[in-house]
Amino acid sequence: MAKVRFDISVSLDGFITGPNPRLEAPLGDGGMQLHDWAFRLATWRERHGLEGGELGADADVVSELLASVGAFVMGRGMFGGGEGPWGDEPWEGWWGDEPPFHAPVFVLTHHAREPLVKQGGTTFSFVTDGIEAALEEAKAAASENDVSIAGGGDVVRQSLNAGLVDEFQIHLAPVVLGDGVRLLERLDPERVRLERVRVIDSPTVTHLRYRVLS
Amino acid sequence: MAKVRFDISVSLDGFITGPNPRLEAPLGDGGMQLHDWAFRLATWRERHGLEGGELGADADVVSELLASVGAFVMGRGMFGGGEGPWGDEPWEGWWGDEPPFHAPVFVLTHHAREPLVKQGGTTFSFVTDGIEAALEEAKAAASENDVSIAGGGDVVRQSLNAGLVDEFQIHLAPVVLGDGVRLLERLDPERVRLERVRVIDSPTVTHLRYRVLS
Repeated sequence: MAKVRFDISVSLDGFITGPNPRLEAPLGDGGMQLHDWAFRLATWRERHGLEGGELGADADVVSELLASVGAFVMGRGMFGGGEGPWGDEPWEGWWGDEPPFHAPVFVLTHHAREPLVKQGGTTFSFVTDGIEAALEEAKAAASENDVSIAGGGDVVRQSLNAGLVDEFQIHLAPVVLGDGVRLLERLDPERVRLERVRVIDSPTVTHLRYRVLS
Repeated sequence: MAKVRFDISVSLDGFITGPNPRLEAPLGDGGMQLHDWAFRLATWRERHGLEGGELGADADVVSELLASVGAFVMGRGMFGGGEGPWGDEPWEGWWGDEPPFHAPVFVLTHHAREPLVKQGGTTFSFVTDGIEAALEEAKAAASENDVSIAGGGDVVRQSLNAGLVDEFQIHLAPVVLGDGVRLLERLDPERVRLERVRVIDSPTVTHLRYRVLS
């Protein structure tokens, strides 16, 4: 049975972006450090059309999660439009001509829009009737594979509090950002009861996987 | 060389207490769950004058940290007086006649007060001239052993942002509390640069240890 999950890099103080996100630094001050652990990996580089990179436990974690995902759901801020600090004109998003998703991506938004087809198998579809509808569309598109909630924090929170997430993995980076967008905030303890599934660690990141008990 | 450290249990969403702390539940709603992992351990039970309990990796983590601590520093809220929601009359604190510290404890406060001697080797001394002074007094009392910052969140934050912490260990519990006091908040990324030292995990808790780079 396909799962709804998320796999997101977080600072030790709980942030998925640093302060002051802006067009030239969408992850805010220091935010790119959250992904340092991934940039050097062969499996991440291959996904982004780059050669070389390291193998090992972290690379295996990345291959595993990429192999099992059939569709993504994300908020409009993460797609790159609308409700962030960069104005609200529809545009092509942060992700360039060949985004790293290589799968259908369902973008939560208040503004209906035609799907945006990119190279390499990524199509952004825009869903205006909420997170549950977006996840249903993504499940249908993913078929037997999992649906990954790519972010941001508000979409993760809504999904967790609505009991829509089966499992998640936090990639905990040994950095503090001080401020920014938190991943786990205003969660409902009655709805979000967890069981630890697995911990894998390396000097640059700790991968913490949890199941959400229903 | 003796270190200044802290070893604190935290929820996955970053809280060291739940919401609504009160006299009969000083850790707030759900807060006791943060310590479930420790209550069942032989090493923790022995420290608190109880018999029995489990051995294993978690118990070893607790023995290790208890063996190396020569003195504690804590905020007045954690001692049990003053600036919390329970009024501001000096009193004997949360910790009963034989507190589990068995060592000198230096309590940060704005109100000078004579030391309070308890059974079993715990003496609470009250320091009115700030965190740096409290840590110096604790280092002198600890001699060759480490000084442990017991909490709360504000004392941890002040210490980290002032560059006074050498190392810390977070005991990450697989629970969410939704609200309460955060451990890692408003940190200064320039001052708090980290190196991961060690990760030990079990089904009920993940022990994450970091060194603060100077």
